[in-house]
Amino acid sequence: MTAKTAVTPTGHATPPAKFSHGVRKGNILQVAGQVGFLPTKDGQPPAVAGPTLREQTVQTLANVQAVLEAGGASWEDVVMLRVYLTDTEHFAEMNALYDAHFASLQGSPPARTTVYVGLPKGLLIEIDALAVLD
Amino acid sequence: MTAKTAVTPTGHATPPAKFSHGVRKGNILQVAGQVGFLPTKDGQPPAVAGPTLREQTVQTLANVQAVLEAGGASWEDVVMLRVYLTDTEHFAEMNALYDAHFASLQGSPPARTTVYVGLPKGLLIEIDALAVLD
Amino acid sequence: MTAKTAVTPTGHATPPAKFSHGVRKGNILQVAGQVGFLPTKDGQPPAVAGPTLREQTVQTLANVQAVLEAGGASWEDVVMLRVYLTDTEHFAEMNALYDAHFASLQGSPPARTTVYVGLPKGLLIEIDALAVLD
Repeated sequence: MTAKTAVTPTGHATPPAKFSHGVRKGNILQVAGQVGFLPTKDGQPPAVAGPTLREQTVQTLANVQAVLEAGGASWEDVVMLRVYLTDTEHFAEMNALYDAHFASLQGSPPARTTVYVGLPKGLLIEIDALAVLD
Repeated sequence: MTAKTAVTPTGHATPPAKFSHGVRKGNILQVAGQVGFLPTKDGQPPAVAGPTLREQTVQTLANVQAVLEAGGASWEDVVMLRVYLTDTEHFAEMNALYDAHFASLQGSPPARTTVYVGLPKGLLIEIDALAVLD
Repeated sequence: MTAKTAVTPTGHATPPAKFSHGVRKGNILQVAGQVGFLPTKDGQPPAVAGPTLREQTVQTLANVQAVLEAGGASWEDVVMLRVYLTDTEHFAEMNALYDAHFASLQGSPPARTTVYVGLPKGLLIEIDALAVLD
């Protein structure tokens, strides 16, 4: 049987239910939906990086990256990012921040789907990722 | 070529279009979006387990599990669950039901993304799953 | 390390950000969210196939297929399609078009999840796909 291991970055807020921030099984590393929570100390409630799309997008990408790195992966391994926004008016700004984040990416950029959904109050963006490893 | 096989649990309502409740190809088992439909007899229209989030969440998780089991898998193989709710006010109750469902899970819990979307009238929750097998 | 390669069909509109229309890594081919854009010439802004669900669904499925084919895959390799609609009233018509599209599919149909979200103005449907190859 292929072992399944949870990936839990240091400083990530404890999930609000029994799920893992990341899971590795076989060649697949799945990153759970990340939002703009700042690194937290054990027992502290999570705090959002800020009210703006910019602050939350930067922090959300950092949080996805932290899960990837804790799982021994990098952006180069990611095949898909799912971006959830709450407002179609945010698309252009998110894309600019996204492109800045990936400006130094060496390999092919991941695929992506962006859709507009509801998120918990105060959250403007959520991102999850699928990575394929060796 | 890696063979692809459909996974069709006994009692699952016939899909409303040409898709499979589950598909296995290579090391991947993908479970289609499941909702709170009760097991049905051939030819009967699907009936929802009940109007409440509790009834639908319990039934939806049972339906995902039925696809996993029909595909020779279990929750231990699942790396990702996507939970679609219609109302942010349902998050806490869904999480409580979710945690109860997974209380006896031995291995690492799957990753998860929860977003708030529209669903067909009367449905409050939909869940799909990605599993990795040997 | 497993190589990652971008899949870029001829005539596909340049993505609005640094992402790939398709990515192949290991046994996984991920198709990014496709919409009803007509094939375009380099430098031209993308144009939607038409305002109707029918026009956009047919074109969106063609666009997914183009990515699959550019990646050396076919519908037979697809394990999951995610269909994003904007209106629950579109479900029946989309299903009819979907079934017509897949009428000649030889193997097991992919799994599918359909949810109702917001999309950019003028777009009625978006579809992404996960394929498993040898």
